[in-house]
Amino acid sequence: MSHNSFGRLFRFTTWGESHGPSIGCVVDGTPPKLELKEDDIQFWLNKRKPGQSKFTSPRKEDDQVKILSGIIDDDGKQLTTGTPISLLIENQDQRSKDYSDIKDKFRPGHADFTYLSKYGIRDIRGGGRQSARETAMRVAAGAIARKIIPNIEIEGALVQLGEHKINKENWDSKFINENPFWSPDPSTVGIWEEYIESLIKEGDSCGAIIEVRAKNVPVGLGAPIYGKLDADISNAIMSINAVKGVEIGNGFKAATIKGSENSDEMFIENNSPSFKSNNSGGILGGISSGQDIVIRFAIKPTSSIRSSQKTIDKSGKETDISTKGRHDPCVGIRAVPVGEAMIACVLADHFLRNRAQNG
Amino acid sequence: MSHNSFGRLFRFTTWGESHGPSIGCVVDGTPPKLELKEDDIQFWLNKRKPGQSKFTSPRKEDDQVKILSGIIDDDGKQLTTGTPISLLIENQDQRSKDYSDIKDKFRPGHADFTYLSKYGIRDIRGGGRQSARETAMRVAAGAIARKIIPNIEIEGALVQLGEHKINKENWDSKFINENPFWSPDPSTVGIWEEYIESLIKEGDSCGAIIEVRAKNVPVGLGAPIYGKLDADISNAIMSINAVKGVEIGNGFKAATIKGSENSDEMFIENNSPSFKSNNSGGILGGISSGQDIVIRFAIKPTSSIRSSQKTIDKSGKETDISTKGRHDPCVGIRAVPVGEAMIACVLADHFLRNRAQNG
Amino acid sequence: MSHNSFGRLFRFTTWGESHGPSIGCVVDGTPPKLELKEDDIQFWLNKRKPGQSKFTSPRKEDDQVKILSGIIDDDGKQLTTGTPISLLIENQDQRSKDYSDIKDKFRPGHADFTYLSKYGIRDIRGGGRQSARETAMRVAAGAIARKIIPNIEIEGALVQLGEHKINKENWDSKFINENPFWSPDPSTVGIWEEYIESLIKEGDSCGAIIEVRAKNVPVGLGAPIYGKLDADISNAIMSINAVKGVEIGNGFKAATIKGSENSDEMFIENNSPSFKSNNSGGILGGISSGQDIVIRFAIKPTSSIRSSQKTIDKSGKETDISTKGRHDPCVGIRAVPVGEAMIACVLADHFLRNRAQNG
Amino acid sequence: MSHNSFGRLFRFTTWGESHGPSIGCVVDGTPPKLELKEDDIQFWLNKRKPGQSKFTSPRKEDDQVKILSGIIDDDGKQLTTGTPISLLIENQDQRSKDYSDIKDKFRPGHADFTYLSKYGIRDIRGGGRQSARETAMRVAAGAIARKIIPNIEIEGALVQLGEHKINKENWDSKFINENPFWSPDPSTVGIWEEYIESLIKEGDSCGAIIEVRAKNVPVGLGAPIYGKLDADISNAIMSINAVKGVEIGNGFKAATIKGSENSDEMFIENNSPSFKSNNSGGILGGISSGQDIVIRFAIKPTSSIRSSQKTIDKSGKETDISTKGRHDPCVGIRAVPVGEAMIACVLADHFLRNRAQNG
Repeated sequence: MSHNSFGRLFRFTTWGESHGPSIGCVVDGTPPKLELKEDDIQFWLNKRKPGQSKFTSPRKEDDQVKILSGIIDDDGKQLTTGTPISLLIENQDQRSKDYSDIKDKFRPGHADFTYLSKYGIRDIRGGGRQSARETAMRVAAGAIARKIIPNIEIEGALVQLGEHKINKENWDSKFINENPFWSPDPSTVGIWEEYIESLIKEGDSCGAIIEVRAKNVPVGLGAPIYGKLDADISNAIMSINAVKGVEIGNGFKAATIKGSENSDEMFIENNSPSFKSNNSGGILGGISSGQDIVIRFAIKPTSSIRSSQKTIDKSGKETDISTKGRHDPCVGIRAVPVGEAMIACVLADHFLRNRAQNG
Repeated sequence: MSHNSFGRLFRFTTWGESHGPSIGCVVDGTPPKLELKEDDIQFWLNKRKPGQSKFTSPRKEDDQVKILSGIIDDDGKQLTTGTPISLLIENQDQRSKDYSDIKDKFRPGHADFTYLSKYGIRDIRGGGRQSARETAMRVAAGAIARKIIPNIEIEGALVQLGEHKINKENWDSKFINENPFWSPDPSTVGIWEEYIESLIKEGDSCGAIIEVRAKNVPVGLGAPIYGKLDADISNAIMSINAVKGVEIGNGFKAATIKGSENSDEMFIENNSPSFKSNNSGGILGGISSGQDIVIRFAIKPTSSIRSSQKTIDKSGKETDISTKGRHDPCVGIRAVPVGEAMIACVLADHFLRNRAQNG
Repeated sequence: MSHNSFGRLFRFTTWGESHGPSIGCVVDGTPPKLELKEDDIQFWLNKRKPGQSKFTSPRKEDDQVKILSGIIDDDGKQLTTGTPISLLIENQDQRSKDYSDIKDKFRPGHADFTYLSKYGIRDIRGGGRQSARETAMRVAAGAIARKIIPNIEIEGALVQLGEHKINKENWDSKFINENPFWSPDPSTVGIWEEYIESLIKEGDSCGAIIEVRAKNVPVGLGAPIYGKLDADISNAIMSINAVKGVEIGNGFKAATIKGSENSDEMFIENNSPSFKSNNSGGILGGISSGQDIVIRFAIKPTSSIRSSQKTIDKSGKETDISTKGRHDPCVGIRAVPVGEAMIACVLADHFLRNRAQNG
Repeated sequence: MSHNSFGRLFRFTTWGESHGPSIGCVVDGTPPKLELKEDDIQFWLNKRKPGQSKFTSPRKEDDQVKILSGIIDDDGKQLTTGTPISLLIENQDQRSKDYSDIKDKFRPGHADFTYLSKYGIRDIRGGGRQSARETAMRVAAGAIARKIIPNIEIEGALVQLGEHKINKENWDSKFINENPFWSPDPSTVGIWEEYIESLIKEGDSCGAIIEVRAKNVPVGLGAPIYGKLDADISNAIMSINAVKGVEIGNGFKAATIKGSENSDEMFIENNSPSFKSNNSGGILGGISSGQDIVIRFAIKPTSSIRSSQKTIDKSGKETDISTKGRHDPCVGIRAVPVGEAMIACVLADHFLRNRAQNG
């Protein structure tokens, strides 16, 4: 058991604080002989890194990953050896002074109070271990996970920003990578831009809903009763900073409709079992059905806001606080590649788990 | 790693099929010298067992639990010894013939297709291991979990049946145990009765939303990053049959409001840190804050319905199916004590995990 | 993590006390579609059960195992389904009164003192959970494990009783099952009989050394660094009651010879890699080499002896004790099938672990 | 489950190859507010590092450890925060060319053959992950472990080199750190020097036996049945490179004596329970008794020897090999601090595990 490790057979352990010298992770259980270059990981890290648009934190981090172990050069190819892969990113743009005036205050919505209550000590620089900076390593681990399941495709998108939803009929997968919001719907971009700009002006923030779809998932991943694929996905997603809800397939909507509406009837297509709908989100009884896995999760609005809030300090005095560090007006935007990565990790883990028992 | 075990330090392993001779679980990690009688467990099992009202399955099961190990008589008190507690319930009312005509067909919305695809074999009697009968053992384990954290109180209630929500202002904790729906709102009972009766007539089913609140949770339970309390709760809840979504505190609503609305400001009350609101649902950064933990989850409508549906059979032929076994028109009703039990188990586990690291 | 579970992917959890109503275990991770009847397990349990000769405990236990879950009848064959297999044995010959006069005293060499110190409570009846009765469930789990690796053969034998060693040149595998000591050397039986009879007269006991050999082990089981096959075997063997030492291949002898003597040179035989010797005991770098795995372990003399010993009681008073229950003069004899079973379980576990990572 | 992680609650994960850029580990589960400086770890690393005498490998490594996370400066003290501690050592003296002429041959006694058979690929530079260089990180983790149990003292010593044993009556704890062999017996040093020098001349190597004693271990560490302290110690020790046997207390000798000789009688001394002897090695029923824990383990002779041996190569051809890299004539010498460290890690882990269940 390790509180800083994720997964069972494909398993990664992260370490590092927001404003320490570096952050990193160790990825264990990777099958041997997979091709893996630093660039393969960097590609995904670049999607997550801050400072890429005016809609995310201006913190400047190259997030340049180094592979320290677990691969060798084999006739010009970098291949995994089956031993642990150690990844490291050096922190660059730590402005710890930004935090000095709030070091004794508990920021509302943050884990300052709970970390200190639990451990009796905490690293206040940039939130230390609480910081979403840790999610860079999830993205790195996810890059390796994607290589484990043949043909797997994972696509995440922002489907709601504050109260502004996309129109699902406009879904354009190609467009997702062409706008700073990861929106799949071109018609939303203008509205979202305007909304974020108004929030920045107000010193406020907003939440978001993200959808992740995994395609080409083999039938049979996930294992009853306490290794259900949807349960492990929920755990993975809820462990991401600021996530407050997760749903699969019809999700909360399933509670409001009838059994006759919610079931996915089956038929034969091209000699294969097929489903007329995907209300289940690709998982039945905790096991993948071969349909796309579809999940959604809710991100709360960034807790660090410029406007003043009431709080208390370490000594038990009431006080006010307004956060001046470099923060995302909506942390949901940068959570898109993180959500994708966590789904990749869960699927890779269950791919190995299923192979162990079922050959 | 075990696919049929839940928890890390407070850990239970369940076994058994719906129509086998018995079901059971082994609970490990319980601290010694806790008082534990069979009646303490039976009390909670009686809340879950079927056949108690016309709104749940007419299957008759006494669900009489036996403790086979892990306790001794000490001057007239039954005390835990710190060794594994084995619990067993004999199955009584197995009518396996009900299933004979559907043994080769995949019931839509069920795990028939995925179990067979994964394992190449399955127990069709009553759904075998897929059956919600397994949840009896979660309730039993939860009964032990409740004894581990001093003063813990866990209250679950049905807050929505199909489209029919409760009015939160009517919440009456005492009323929850006085109606067959675990509704906290007396004004809903008549509406829900009528709705369920109409579904029974139609041969259809509906979903539900359940809320569970845990009170007197100590500050400091849950551990970043991959042992977050909310992540483990999500996993626990999503592992319950038919659950399709889970949220904590404001949940999905948090995505739609601003940071200034969502944060819980702090102040001092009776010389203690207090919060002006509980939008976080009692968890900050994955660690309990001392506020009530508040979670909600969505249950899909029962997949087994009397009305006819299209499906295929094992041999790959298209066919129709209508399920005639004894089924709950809304499985959400009996999921209330199961949700409570799973929250109890997660909290007990983290109580021990926190004590390990933090003394 | 569970203190009463063994293995990672092939994993069993045992429960029960020596003089409780029953003992049992839950075996998880078994691949589906393996043929498994109660008799397959009973066969091995019968090798371990007490009361079979005058050289072991006269306690009478049929040790009749029941399979409660995890298998179904498929056209007349009993097949595993991939779900947990629950096994139960009812205790029959509990004579708890034998223990009443020692309930407050700590028996030297037993865990009475440490259990009570650790838990503050203990089940004194027959030693409760400390009793070697638990090893019946290891043998049962081992019976299932043997079915997982194709063609695996595991042979255990007693190679030393007190100071009386076998002559390795007389090794006769067939003879092992034809004498009450599991001796592979017919020339020892008379000597051992005489020695045990003299110990019974003296009210004393002796230790033993057991050797277990596993044949047809595939190359590649075991994983560096902390999943080494030899490390996991050591853990498995040392967890058996009364074991005080374990060695692999040349074992302690390897410390006394030179590198040039200890290495196993390689050559080609029948187009396959072969070794000129097996000093390594079939494991190199924690990974099976395809050679026979050969381990030995030392069992201390039975601590329960009739002759009087000095000890203290719960209240802190010095006193004398002599144990009158039904005890084996040498617990090593009945440990032979237990050692075999544990090796089977480790190998089955690593077979699945290797398949997960390496396909 | 991770093959490169050790421990449950105090848990470390190592990574890195002998001739990669660096090696490291992540230590998780450490209680907060322990004082921890790089020098505290360096102290123990310096005991293990190569190139310190003519009796160990001439490889030059400063083994300078860096702490990358998990501690903060608190009023001039470096304190743990309860988050993962990442440690890194840069490799310096990699002479990979030494290995080029043996890259296709399987060195007898090494894991070359088994790594390649298992993974289909391997890092041949310095043995890659097989190398004992990994043990530096065990020593580093052990340095942290030592801080967790109050007053714990762990003392390792070489008690046999080849056939040359120490005289136990000469045991002088102070002398252990004053000679290059970690011998506790001044009378052995001359004999051992001469023996090692003769082996170096012959191009041969020898094995050794190491004893580790842990003092001030609290009563109650270790948990039946599959978390026994002795079983976990065996696993820890057997995972060290080149170990072929491990024993506790009387160990293999226990097999040869009678119950009346082997039991440790109890009495009262200074109002406390005491034992007249320590044949059990400080562990009864898998639980620490409060006596010193005493274990011994056997190290095989270094497999890399200069004299020529028969072997095969990757293509299946028979060939000869003689190893020219920089190797220890007896790897047992440098295994002393490694054995100590592993015992420290097991005890720290069980200290937390016991606190979790028993408060």
